Amino acid sequence: MLAEIITIGDEILIGQIVDTNSAWMATELNKIGVKIKQITSISDEAGHIVAALNEAQERADIILITGGLGPTKDDVTKITLANYFNMPLKLDEATLAHVKQFFEKLNRPMIEANIKQAEVPDGCTVITNKNGTAPCMWFEHNDKIIVSMPGVPFEMKYLMEDEIIPRIKKAFKLPFIVHQSILTAGLGESFLAEQIADLEEALPSHIKLAYLPKLDQVRLRLSASGINEDALLAEIALHTNKIVERLEKHVVLTEDLPFEKAILNLMGKHKLTLSLAESCTGGYISHLFTQHPGSSTVFQGGGVTYSNALKQLLLGVKEETLDEFGAVSEQTAKEMAIGAVANFKTDYAIAVTGIAGPDGGSVDKPVGTVWVAVASKTQVKAKMYKFASQRLQNIERSAMAAMMMLFLQLKQDLNVKP
Amino acid sequence: MLAEIITIGDEILIGQIVDTNSAWMATELNKIGVKIKQITSISDEAGHIVAALNEAQERADIILITGGLGPTKDDVTKITLANYFNMPLKLDEATLAHVKQFFEKLNRPMIEANIKQAEVPDGCTVITNKNGTAPCMWFEHNDKIIVSMPGVPFEMKYLMEDEIIPRIKKAFKLPFIVHQSILTAGLGESFLAEQIADLEEALPSHIKLAYLPKLDQVRLRLSASGINEDALLAEIALHTNKIVERLEKHVVLTEDLPFEKAILNLMGKHKLTLSLAESCTGGYISHLFTQHPGSSTVFQGGGVTYSNALKQLLLGVKEETLDEFGAVSEQTAKEMAIGAVANFKTDYAIAVTGIAGPDGGSVDKPVGTVWVAVASKTQVKAKMYKFASQRLQNIERSAMAAMMMLFLQLKQDLNVKP
Repeated sequence: MLAEIITIGDEILIGQIVDTNSAWMATELNKIGVKIKQITSISDEAGHIVAALNEAQERADIILITGGLGPTKDDVTKITLANYFNMPLKLDEATLAHVKQFFEKLNRPMIEANIKQAEVPDGCTVITNKNGTAPCMWFEHNDKIIVSMPGVPFEMKYLMEDEIIPRIKKAFKLPFIVHQSILTAGLGESFLAEQIADLEEALPSHIKLAYLPKLDQVRLRLSASGINEDALLAEIALHTNKIVERLEKHVVLTEDLPFEKAILNLMGKHKLTLSLAESCTGGYISHLFTQHPGSSTVFQGGGVTYSNALKQLLLGVKEETLDEFGAVSEQTAKEMAIGAVANFKTDYAIAVTGIAGPDGGSVDKPVGTVWVAVASKTQVKAKMYKFASQRLQNIERSAMAAMMMLFLQLKQDLNVKP
Repeated sequence: MLAEIITIGDEILIGQIVDTNSAWMATELNKIGVKIKQITSISDEAGHIVAALNEAQERADIILITGGLGPTKDDVTKITLANYFNMPLKLDEATLAHVKQFFEKLNRPMIEANIKQAEVPDGCTVITNKNGTAPCMWFEHNDKIIVSMPGVPFEMKYLMEDEIIPRIKKAFKLPFIVHQSILTAGLGESFLAEQIADLEEALPSHIKLAYLPKLDQVRLRLSASGINEDALLAEIALHTNKIVERLEKHVVLTEDLPFEKAILNLMGKHKLTLSLAESCTGGYISHLFTQHPGSSTVFQGGGVTYSNALKQLLLGVKEETLDEFGAVSEQTAKEMAIGAVANFKTDYAIAVTGIAGPDGGSVDKPVGTVWVAVASKTQVKAKMYKFASQRLQNIERSAMAAMMMLFLQLKQDLNVKP
């Protein structure tokens, strides 16, 4: 079963916003065995919408449209769909009642444009949007399903989860798609490929292998599709084991989880706590951990010690250490990590101190020089990394390196296999 | 001048990665007066690549393709382009030398697949990729320009900035496009539209107004295109002023900057320092500030005080306060902010404490309850927000609310107009 996503809105085409909806939708649709054939971002123009809709129907059975449903003049999706399907707009009483209620709850008066949001093409199935005022519209047309929903992520997500995915599952008999991810570190994409060339060659045609490189890690993804889910799971497990065995020490994780979530799970299982001492990563690692519900059982908090003064105050880094070795040094990183374990009273701590750039580098310590330390109550280890010149990339690389160092240390201390 | 972006790669279509490249490319192209007509994400299949390429050439003059250039089997962009343009692959000596050098620098041996990366369609213009091994390829075909580049963001970005944009500027005589952004808060999209309906009606046809709502803010964007840049700037300034005058106190910012950058600029100009005390935002606000080069002159650091113990230890929140009012309370928020100003020795501090969810709520304090406090050396103010049930959205909303509160306080204290 093939689907396409069409996102409508000039704001994507001028780069004002990043389209995060499509990736989320694709992930959810994949889980139910619907493959995305194409994602198309187009402007708020009737002609363009019609053309994209025609092209998409040539390729796919399900067309999911987001955006262009706001109450303002620049949004033309609804009237365009009404004309396209030859269904005049009519006021939908249930939607109007919902919109009225929505404004009452917000304690704001309604205006003409809001009432117009309750108009829908006469003949589509209207799905009430509990999280907003623009209704979701479901069309069936020449054996294709076309759904129009708002582009606001939390309106779209709820509609997909609660309404659209269940309806798609009901409408089609779908094959299963099973994914297995293998996160590796320390080997480039081409080297990995060479090492497992024979295993890749031997994969049956319904199992595909993809390489997803990101910074110093490569995620391998096996995808199998078929009608028997149990058989697929067994089959993909078999091939996964072969690859994991072959790549051995380069395999970090065989769960499709963000790295920080795998750390939280492992530490949570062993009732261990974590704190952070972040200098050049500036809160980014804390943010990664605290994105996840329940992170507070493991993650206690930490210091974002951008200034030297805060490194001393919060982490107890010695003034002599900073004077003699500098803020970006093995000694400072170690004292930061030890200080975090001691002051924040946690089992483990990560410390990161480096020069993220673009300024602040020197001949001895160029931009991209980063020290990471991992401390427990009994030991501390530090390692230097030399990244490149780009600030955001250095922040992300430092975060990944720090989490990797902690993860490997945990696996060693806890005697855990990948 | 119209361009299209085609991103190639199954990883986007299965939702494994979010396409951030396209927004960045669109922003950069807009600056030189190239409008993006469509962004299309397709799979690593020759037939799909050819179809997308044909369709794009019907609509645009410049086609920028990213992705599918890796050394592994799943990447077929290069061979597909070679067949499409009827240019057999040949080994490019300059590229081979570059690839060799690249591997030498990394101290890794080359394998067959890497040598193949130096093969290019015979007849295209090869642009060396200083940040990677896959070369960039520039084709001219029936008065259209088609460029293929790697999808790795920092390879693509450098190639766009240093090579492709200068070449596009040379190849075409481009109109100017001028954007002006007006960030507003406190009024919904439809209300804003109603308040400025006559001003919008009166805009000349070469100036467009767009509404970009995000959480509790709406960014208005005026875009003007034409051949005389100075005239456009004057004209857009005139219309901007009219809108700003009309919306008055709802206007937060008339610069097209991320909110945190506007705060850094304002505080930097007045030589003020900032620290943070983050509980439910978990480092996210720190991360927002520290993304920006030079943020360290204003932002000194802060505490990510997830646990109550850390709230007491780092910020001096009193145990009685936590016992009597709880961690999510006006009193705790205020003590956190005052503690940050005092302990971290900064001019201002923001404190955020709340229940991000999905768990941890109660009848009195449901998920989404967030207290924000802003303190200076002489005063502290706190405000409660009631957000919704979604964790990531609550983190982001809290961050925006906190920055807004600081920004308004700064404007008041410094007597600054929007």
